[in-house]
Amino acid sequence: MSKSLDIAVIGATGTIGETIVQLLEEREFPVTNLHLLAGSASAGQSVPFRGKNLRVRELADFDFSKVQLAFIAAGEAVAASYVAKARAAGCSVIELSGALPLDEAPRLVPEANGELLETLQPPFLLTSPAPAATALALVLAPLRSVLALQRITLTAALAVSSQGREGIAELAKQTTELLNMRPLEPKVFDKQIAFNLLAQVGAVDDSGHAHLERRIAQDLKQVLGVAELKVAVSCVQVPVFFGDSLSVSLQAAKPVDVAQAAHLLDKQPGIERVEEGDYPTVVSDAVGQDEVYVGRLRLGLDDPSELNLWIASDNVRKGSALNAVQIGELLIKHYL
Amino acid sequence: MSKSLDIAVIGATGTIGETIVQLLEEREFPVTNLHLLAGSASAGQSVPFRGKNLRVRELADFDFSKVQLAFIAAGEAVAASYVAKARAAGCSVIELSGALPLDEAPRLVPEANGELLETLQPPFLLTSPAPAATALALVLAPLRSVLALQRITLTAALAVSSQGREGIAELAKQTTELLNMRPLEPKVFDKQIAFNLLAQVGAVDDSGHAHLERRIAQDLKQVLGVAELKVAVSCVQVPVFFGDSLSVSLQAAKPVDVAQAAHLLDKQPGIERVEEGDYPTVVSDAVGQDEVYVGRLRLGLDDPSELNLWIASDNVRKGSALNAVQIGELLIKHYL
Ligand SMILES: NC(=O)c1ccc[n+]([C@@H]2O[C@H](COP(=O)([O-])OP(=O)(O)OC[C@H]3O[C@@H](n4cnc5c(N)ncnc54)[C@H](OP(=O)(O)O)[C@@H]3O)[C@@H](O)[C@H]2O)c1
Ligand SMILES: NC(=O)c1ccc[n+]([C@@H]2O[C@H](COP(=O)([O-])OP(=O)(O)OC[C@H]3O[C@@H](n4cnc5c(N)ncnc54)[C@H](OP(=O)(O)O)[C@@H]3O)[C@@H](O)[C@H]2O)c1
Repeated sequence: MSKSLDIAVIGATGTIGETIVQLLEEREFPVTNLHLLAGSASAGQSVPFRGKNLRVRELADFDFSKVQLAFIAAGEAVAASYVAKARAAGCSVIELSGALPLDEAPRLVPEANGELLETLQPPFLLTSPAPAATALALVLAPLRSVLALQRITLTAALAVSSQGREGIAELAKQTTELLNMRPLEPKVFDKQIAFNLLAQVGAVDDSGHAHLERRIAQDLKQVLGVAELKVAVSCVQVPVFFGDSLSVSLQAAKPVDVAQAAHLLDKQPGIERVEEGDYPTVVSDAVGQDEVYVGRLRLGLDDPSELNLWIASDNVRKGSALNAVQIGELLIKHYL
Repeated sequence: MSKSLDIAVIGATGTIGETIVQLLEEREFPVTNLHLLAGSASAGQSVPFRGKNLRVRELADFDFSKVQLAFIAAGEAVAASYVAKARAAGCSVIELSGALPLDEAPRLVPEANGELLETLQPPFLLTSPAPAATALALVLAPLRSVLALQRITLTAALAVSSQGREGIAELAKQTTELLNMRPLEPKVFDKQIAFNLLAQVGAVDDSGHAHLERRIAQDLKQVLGVAELKVAVSCVQVPVFFGDSLSVSLQAAKPVDVAQAAHLLDKQPGIERVEEGDYPTVVSDAVGQDEVYVGRLRLGLDDPSELNLWIASDNVRKGSALNAVQIGELLIKHYL
């Protein structure tokens, strides 16, 4: 790659934005000028990049014609307000909140549906899927052709960092308060999260599904290109700081060959498969790593066409920041 | 009830055994003499019962002909060694480890398959199922006739108290060590459990299933009387002290009427249903309660024959001690 771009990271002081900046440096992304943007609360802070401290500026004042690519990791409202502005200025956008519909802002996991870019024109608008969908899509991509998937049942156990800096602070605070026998007042989460599991992440609609559950299902279907697949998603908030854990049960059209599935996963870049007997966890394996970890591959107890597995993935890296940066790498290599 | 029995509680100093003793008192179980038994480690301790402190004695020396009913909550090895001895002395047994096969020691949840007792003869040998199976059977019992169940997919998030006193101590210790930045050495669990999720509970067999996962599936099928049902079980150890959380997806033979299912659950004794919008958790609802809490009832996103739900249940009470005592109540009322 000899091209180099001017780039903006919006939400640069957040959990995801900071990691995007780190990854741009680590992966030697061809950046000419890097513009770091946030809200009024953290404008003025500085963030290290390539040995310098870059000043974070306020998004409201930013002129998008200065950059060719923007990562937006600052929530749905910011995405909804600024995406059109960025593209009108000719800037391609990689968005992380999922605020925009599938047809306008397609979901992309380079290893699973990178070829989708061939059908699009610059300035691009792409979405990095919900982290659980990204991790699961990465694992299912090499399996989908041999499995003939009919149904996916997913319980996604989400780390508190999926609620950003405030989610992390709340788990730490509640844990300390409980160990010191002090009363606690939930703020970020609606109930006690320390030493507890919350069955609902965000509000639910009339049919009882959380917005995030619908998002994971639709993102997954678009990335895997399987609109007719039946998907059941239950999101659970768990007292874990970083890393999503996914309990997955797949129904295939015919008996599954577990050894073949294991072999296909072993060949797939970005996946670490843990052998039977052992299993991956977010703390011991996934956190801080680029790879998504898979284990506990096993047929159904009663059904040879069922494949069960477990995924441990860093929601901040491959789940969000890394996947977004990889989309950027694909864009700059072939399309920008 | 005017009958009254001499009763033994084996494992009386453990998490489950202590709760059995409390429930015998709370529920005014007709006990004449109560014999408390444990291993050599805690023999000599005393446990309160009806205002007195009862001395715990060593099981090895116990004469089972002194009692008509024994609760055994001291692990698989104790059950395997003492059940035959107890019954040879004419003592009925309620066992909690699941050490004995289904046909010898049938699984019983009074609300779901209490009528099974009609086919048996004293001295009885009955097993209280794995806690997750007990909670799920209680919830599915009123639904099974209308749903025509085809498949159950269960992710069971188990509290550390499912590993008894040592499990509880380990989570407390690791949490404190981590908050104080001290290194930790896992002992009871094979990896760090604080702020982490473990995808495997106990060893797995050649096909990759944990013993407990098989046990939950077989116990559930026996209690519900649905041998042909397809069941997928994934047990996950979570950093929660008390209470199991179950994420459940059911496939029925025909479209599910959620309002009808809710109504049937509302009528069922022993169940508290939480309305849509809110949801139960182990900490805020289930722990210390006799009821099993159910919430997040919702159809599939893509399949009207799918019903998803969430259960929060005290693994020590209805999951174990309470169900065992309820089996005892049924026995004394009709059969002993
Ligand atoms: N955490 C995850 O696992 C995850 C995963 C996938 C996607 N995402 C998406 O990424 C977004 C950021 O998540 P996060 O975890 O990094 O959150 P976070 O730690 O709370 O950080 C939020 C960032 O957005 C900035 N921001 C907030 N309001 C803004 C505004 N009006 N204008 C400009 N910047 C604004 C914040 O700056 P100030 O301090 O100035 O407000 C901060 O830099 C989320 O909204 C979510 O949609 C998060
Ligand atoms: N915890 C749960 O959620 C749960 C749920 C369902 C079933 N169960 C079953 O119930 C059993 C007890 O569980 P728990 O959680 O109460 O365990 P626990 O807290 O570790 O207590 C174990 C009890 O068993 C006694 N014991 C151990 N070895 C013995 C022996 N050789 N002879 C006589 N007594 C012996 C212990 O006495 P000492 O101190 O003298 O060793 C103690 O009273 C488990 O093994 C399990 O099979 C547990």
